[in-house]
Amino acid sequence: MKVVVTGAAGFIGQRLVRSVLAKGELTLADGSTAEVTSLLATDIVAPPEPIFGDQRLTFVAGDFGTNEMLDLLITPDTQVVFHLAAIVSGGAEEDFDLGMRVNLYSTMALLERLRALPHVPRLVFASSVAVFGGTLPDVIEDGTACTPQTSYGGQKLITEHLLTDYSRRGFLDGRALRLPTIVVRPGKPNKAASSFASAIIRDPLQGQMVTCPVSEDAGVWVLSPRKVVENFLRAEELPAAVWGTSRSVSLPGLTITVKSMIDTLREVAGDAVAERIRWQPDAEIERIVYGWPVKFAPNRALEMGFAADRSFREIVEAFINDDLNGTFVE
Amino acid sequence: MKVVVTGAAGFIGQRLVRSVLAKGELTLADGSTAEVTSLLATDIVAPPEPIFGDQRLTFVAGDFGTNEMLDLLITPDTQVVFHLAAIVSGGAEEDFDLGMRVNLYSTMALLERLRALPHVPRLVFASSVAVFGGTLPDVIEDGTACTPQTSYGGQKLITEHLLTDYSRRGFLDGRALRLPTIVVRPGKPNKAASSFASAIIRDPLQGQMVTCPVSEDAGVWVLSPRKVVENFLRAEELPAAVWGTSRSVSLPGLTITVKSMIDTLREVAGDAVAERIRWQPDAEIERIVYGWPVKFAPNRALEMGFAADRSFREIVEAFINDDLNGTFVE
Repeated sequence: MKVVVTGAAGFIGQRLVRSVLAKGELTLADGSTAEVTSLLATDIVAPPEPIFGDQRLTFVAGDFGTNEMLDLLITPDTQVVFHLAAIVSGGAEEDFDLGMRVNLYSTMALLERLRALPHVPRLVFASSVAVFGGTLPDVIEDGTACTPQTSYGGQKLITEHLLTDYSRRGFLDGRALRLPTIVVRPGKPNKAASSFASAIIRDPLQGQMVTCPVSEDAGVWVLSPRKVVENFLRAEELPAAVWGTSRSVSLPGLTITVKSMIDTLREVAGDAVAERIRWQPDAEIERIVYGWPVKFAPNRALEMGFAADRSFREIVEAFINDDLNGTFVE
Repeated sequence: MKVVVTGAAGFIGQRLVRSVLAKGELTLADGSTAEVTSLLATDIVAPPEPIFGDQRLTFVAGDFGTNEMLDLLITPDTQVVFHLAAIVSGGAEEDFDLGMRVNLYSTMALLERLRALPHVPRLVFASSVAVFGGTLPDVIEDGTACTPQTSYGGQKLITEHLLTDYSRRGFLDGRALRLPTIVVRPGKPNKAASSFASAIIRDPLQGQMVTCPVSEDAGVWVLSPRKVVENFLRAEELPAAVWGTSRSVSLPGLTITVKSMIDTLREVAGDAVAERIRWQPDAEIERIVYGWPVKFAPNRALEMGFAADRSFREIVEAFINDDLNGTFVE
């Protein structure tokens, strides 16, 4: 079977591509499994480092939402799509039209292409806890209403509802995962309002000073890159019946404050590393971040077999092992 | 100012047009009021009876979502739009593409036209309790998650989220009312799955036999045409600040079973009228109707000054007075 991964040059996309190739087979909409014979990975830019070296893999750079790209991506042998490509929260807030085009209109075009296939394809979609916002209870439950307060959150939520309706009608077999803030993200900062949550761990460990735009009591709901990829594969293999009447689920995560994150960094890497953080409040980022929920009771996800990291220490140590070759700048 | 009403040939649209003209002034987005100097009413078909006789009113038949119609409807003097046009629940379920085109794509085009105006227009949108579905608590509260189980409900919900985001960004000043089942709807049955709830009152009072497609223990959440129009005008005049972080509200209503509706009909109009109802279960309509919630705690709406009818008897009597000239066929 042919598998498609959009947003494949991103840090989650790259890991997912590697994991799909390593797993070697995925589940079809009829419940049977099939060998991954080709994986078409795409992103607007090429990945920063080669993720190739596998004959099954082809990488194509381009905007997934154009007709030409959709012609290439969605062909009669496309059985599974992992749709991760998106304009991130800060970017979609800064440029409304760009966010709407990529996060909504292009995704709607993708759904229509999947619907037109002669079989029922399986679609795993990266949604976000940014679907929550506004006046919220202390703990987000599975039945809590979504009232996003960013364009990004709105676009993700709208896609979830389309995906559920397309699935209900049998046009495709969709699954949407609401991702916590994924920490630690390697590489450079991006326009996601949550970018700081990785930067304050990543940059000091590499000997770089970093500024934190929110105060230390700010809370974050986090999950590691390792776990999010495991959860994507879990989402792909679950039978449709397990999803019931909603194709969305809020993934498990850890609730942690910026202060606790830094305390853990200090425990793992020492004072000198932790002292590389400076404070420089950014009102716009604070507005967005304080609007995000921090505590969840993700019962549905846990029942479905999705899992969080056991501790933030485990997340920091995994970053050092996976992304820094086991060492850091003391 | 110019006011636009879409779906104006419908029974609610017709009443709303009359009420806007009678009120004579509406509230602008800056909070000031202005005289209604022109009202452009539109629908896919002309209204069944003239709603004219007022120099301020123009009726144009056509599909509101075409570029030509949008050119006509949304002009630099358009200050207030009541958007009621939609493919109803049964229709959108029967023809997915038609529902998507009218309920979603055309409405998105309307939002973009409003955004392009030199001022901030006010938009009142007819949403529906069909945004709720799936696994629900016994009583729907303001914080209950929306998981619609019809394409119509999904399309209404998606529009609500777009309207909230467009409002948050200051592109327009939107308000979405989730309408209960509106009873008693005059005229002929339509493709709404809720059509029966009006038919079992309306047709017997006019001497006609009627078939009820759901069993008598089926519950319905109802509001009268009189009250829904009052609530539309209330929604238009409320200050933006009252809406807070969500531009949607579930309107108040009455919870009633089909049995109680018929008992009330019997009380008001006598046994002979109530005996004109026959039972003919329809599995598809039952599936949709049983998926709708029946009990609500619409606290937010009540605090905002929206109101329900006092009793179902009042609803039946209002129908006889407003639509049957005060008489019925005994």
